[in-house]
Amino acid sequence: MNWLDAVQWNDDGLVPVVTQDIDSKRILTHAWLNRDALARAASEGRAVYWSRSRKKLWRKGEESGNVQQLHEVYLDCDGDTVVFLVTQVGGIACHTGRESCFYQRLDGDQWQTVDPVLKDPAQMYGKR
Amino acid sequence: MNWLDAVQWNDDGLVPVVTQDIDSKRILTHAWLNRDALARAASEGRAVYWSRSRKKLWRKGEESGNVQQLHEVYLDCDGDTVVFLVTQVGGIACHTGRESCFYQRLDGDQWQTVDPVLKDPAQMYGKR
Repeated sequence: MNWLDAVQWNDDGLVPVVTQDIDSKRILTHAWLNRDALARAASEGRAVYWSRSRKKLWRKGEESGNVQQLHEVYLDCDGDTVVFLVTQVGGIACHTGRESCFYQRLDGDQWQTVDPVLKDPAQMYGKR
Repeated sequence: MNWLDAVQWNDDGLVPVVTQDIDSKRILTHAWLNRDALARAASEGRAVYWSRSRKKLWRKGEESGNVQQLHEVYLDCDGDTVVFLVTQVGGIACHTGRESCFYQRLDGDQWQTVDPVLKDPAQMYGKR
């Protein structure tokens, strides 16, 4: 059986993917994969996602330069969620210029921003 | 604003939640939350999910005893994904009796099971 057939794609042909830094183990992003994105990620050795808003393949870092080098791929018990272990080039995974997208922590009944902006997003996505 | 209103619930009133061991940083499970599950998780200090298959609240460990003590809750940049940092009571998060649900690793073009079964599921879910 083709390894891609073991994945339980949802009605939209997608599965969620959690991306974790292979060294720090920090969770960087949560995104989506279709079959083509997962096949390309595995063959190219870099994170490739399916952008639900833009409805196209999204090679992480294609605009910002913040590529994710893909080291390991895991599938869960139900076959419907994937984990990527990556090296985050540039140390910034979030479009806000932070290390991780998960920078808001619940503190009592408030979300507190607990991570600094490492790079101005205008610089990350500016004309190059 | 109520902190629960900052969450961008999808059309089904749900958001995905990634649960990570606070010590080992291993990703244990990927599940779903509705507003009630997230409110209860925060107030009870344990992982509570929304079971999409059973269509009801699911207090992790209510059958297996493998409760997840909830220490920290994070929200991502888009407000549509949550991370739980937990202590996994019993060291087993997966219904197969393994530490994590993500026990299948892609090795070339095959998924390899890389984690041992720590406890027979028949014992975890047997009559008590």
